[in-house]
Amino acid sequence: MFQELVHAKIFQDYLSTAYFPHTPANLYEPIRYIMSLSGKRIRPLLVLMGAELFDSEVLESALPASAAIEYFHNFSLIHDDIMDRAPLRRGQATVHQKWNDSVAILSGDGLLVKAYEELAKCPAHKIGPLLRVFNKTALEVCEGQQYDMDFESRARVSETEYIEMIRLKTSVLLGGALQMGAILAGADERAQELIYSFGVNLGIAFQLQDDILDVYGNPETFGKQVGGDILSNKKTILFVKLDELVNAEDRVELGRLFVSTVEDEPEKVNKMKALYAKYDIQTLAIYQKEKFTTIAYDKLQEIPVEDKKKKVLFALADALMNRTQ
Amino acid sequence: MFQELVHAKIFQDYLSTAYFPHTPANLYEPIRYIMSLSGKRIRPLLVLMGAELFDSEVLESALPASAAIEYFHNFSLIHDDIMDRAPLRRGQATVHQKWNDSVAILSGDGLLVKAYEELAKCPAHKIGPLLRVFNKTALEVCEGQQYDMDFESRARVSETEYIEMIRLKTSVLLGGALQMGAILAGADERAQELIYSFGVNLGIAFQLQDDILDVYGNPETFGKQVGGDILSNKKTILFVKLDELVNAEDRVELGRLFVSTVEDEPEKVNKMKALYAKYDIQTLAIYQKEKFTTIAYDKLQEIPVEDKKKKVLFALADALMNRTQ
Repeated sequence: MFQELVHAKIFQDYLSTAYFPHTPANLYEPIRYIMSLSGKRIRPLLVLMGAELFDSEVLESALPASAAIEYFHNFSLIHDDIMDRAPLRRGQATVHQKWNDSVAILSGDGLLVKAYEELAKCPAHKIGPLLRVFNKTALEVCEGQQYDMDFESRARVSETEYIEMIRLKTSVLLGGALQMGAILAGADERAQELIYSFGVNLGIAFQLQDDILDVYGNPETFGKQVGGDILSNKKTILFVKLDELVNAEDRVELGRLFVSTVEDEPEKVNKMKALYAKYDIQTLAIYQKEKFTTIAYDKLQEIPVEDKKKKVLFALADALMNRTQ
Repeated sequence: MFQELVHAKIFQDYLSTAYFPHTPANLYEPIRYIMSLSGKRIRPLLVLMGAELFDSEVLESALPASAAIEYFHNFSLIHDDIMDRAPLRRGQATVHQKWNDSVAILSGDGLLVKAYEELAKCPAHKIGPLLRVFNKTALEVCEGQQYDMDFESRARVSETEYIEMIRLKTSVLLGGALQMGAILAGADERAQELIYSFGVNLGIAFQLQDDILDVYGNPETFGKQVGGDILSNKKTILFVKLDELVNAEDRVELGRLFVSTVEDEPEKVNKMKALYAKYDIQTLAIYQKEKFTTIAYDKLQEIPVEDKKKKVLFALADALMNRTQ
């Protein structure tokens, strides 16, 4: 994955030249703060890789669009964290926690505008097409976040609804990032659709995998508390599958587990795992994950570009999906 | 002002064709709600008038940009109302009051993206220049809102700081709207600067007038509670002027009035008015208002376009500044 590191370095160098004024401090310091927490920077890499797949000369001119995607992602984290009342992000205090809600709302807004400032730096004849993909994606991410909040207060959510929610909330941004790279490199519409679809399906598969690892992951490598989704009653692919299949008796048990208290925590995880085992939920979830992974790989395969140019994207997908190459 | 009514009708017809999906309802219903409260729609008119001043044929193609400005304005109202904990907007419940903070944050975000969707509909070769003016303006409005919040918790604010805050928070959007119209009509940079400056100075004058009317306006025509700014300890042009000029003894009185309770309300307004009278604050504030009004009219006068084409903008300025024609 040497090339990925090169891209990451080029992107980091570009970001480090970004100018944010010093006043008003309560507007720009939170922006500098969230950007300094960095994260994996997968999305801007996808813009660069999407561009290079179609034109190896276009990397430099794709940097503003990749920054736009990273700014957008961080804007959505600031605002989502307010809505979710999350105290921590990447192991540090969230913006609304470190400052307050008003500061988090406004600095999020400012960061979204900064994303569009980056788009305005793209080559003139590409700005329109890029703006349209970016806007469509941004609005879908808002829709996904709203569905996610709506689902919290709903008793039941179907598997189809759940997958549509994660597609909107997290996956379209991966597809949009790749498509914006493709637009910058002058790819035709068919190729744009294929690379977009690769990104979206990979994103869905990745989220499903995250749901599965939350319960069945290795506590030493997962990085989060195993069973965390169960304890917070999160509707995951495992939960919506179980909810679809349980018999009347087990549904009563499920209802009991949902309202259980902190003292029951270890027991709650074990009892949910027992229910998952009884209905073979892990296998069913892995099947779904594999289905979307396969679609993603097929779409990438189908793009009319020589195989060796796709290597870096296949490698990134393998890494994200924990596949050994 | 017949032409203004024609523009208002054309804009309203365009807005009524705007499509907002029905789901997720909690994302799009608040957007439909705030847009239905309508308001004066001054800002989109400025885009259309700015365009027509330079090219009478360009009106239709300026409609998406005028909608972008109106969406942006309403986005900022939704988010500002959360930050200010305002219960009412245009006499109706604010979005965060009618729904909740999360819904208001997210539907505001969605409306901001919708504004950029409108920009993406503008003529291809204009999108870049329009986007740059729009982004600069949007970021300045965020800065103005942050300064306004910062000022609330500060003991003293200078007149210069206050005028800079209102320039950013409310006036640049008027200038930006006019400039975007001018860009669409192909005006050169010098003309763009002049019409932008007309809008910004008119906006500052209008806000200063609002501060003055809050204390000295006719209760029957002002539309808000006279003395409302005094009761809420708002830092207005009158307050910052007084604060600059009071002697030590009156400063003690000012401090007492600041912490006075609800029971003292009528007395508080009268006592503040007595202090304003003692230092001739009304005259000083009117002088400032007139200064910015004069600059605005001068800038409009300077634009190299025949006088008769400027009539509608002079008439609008007269109407905003309560001047008889």
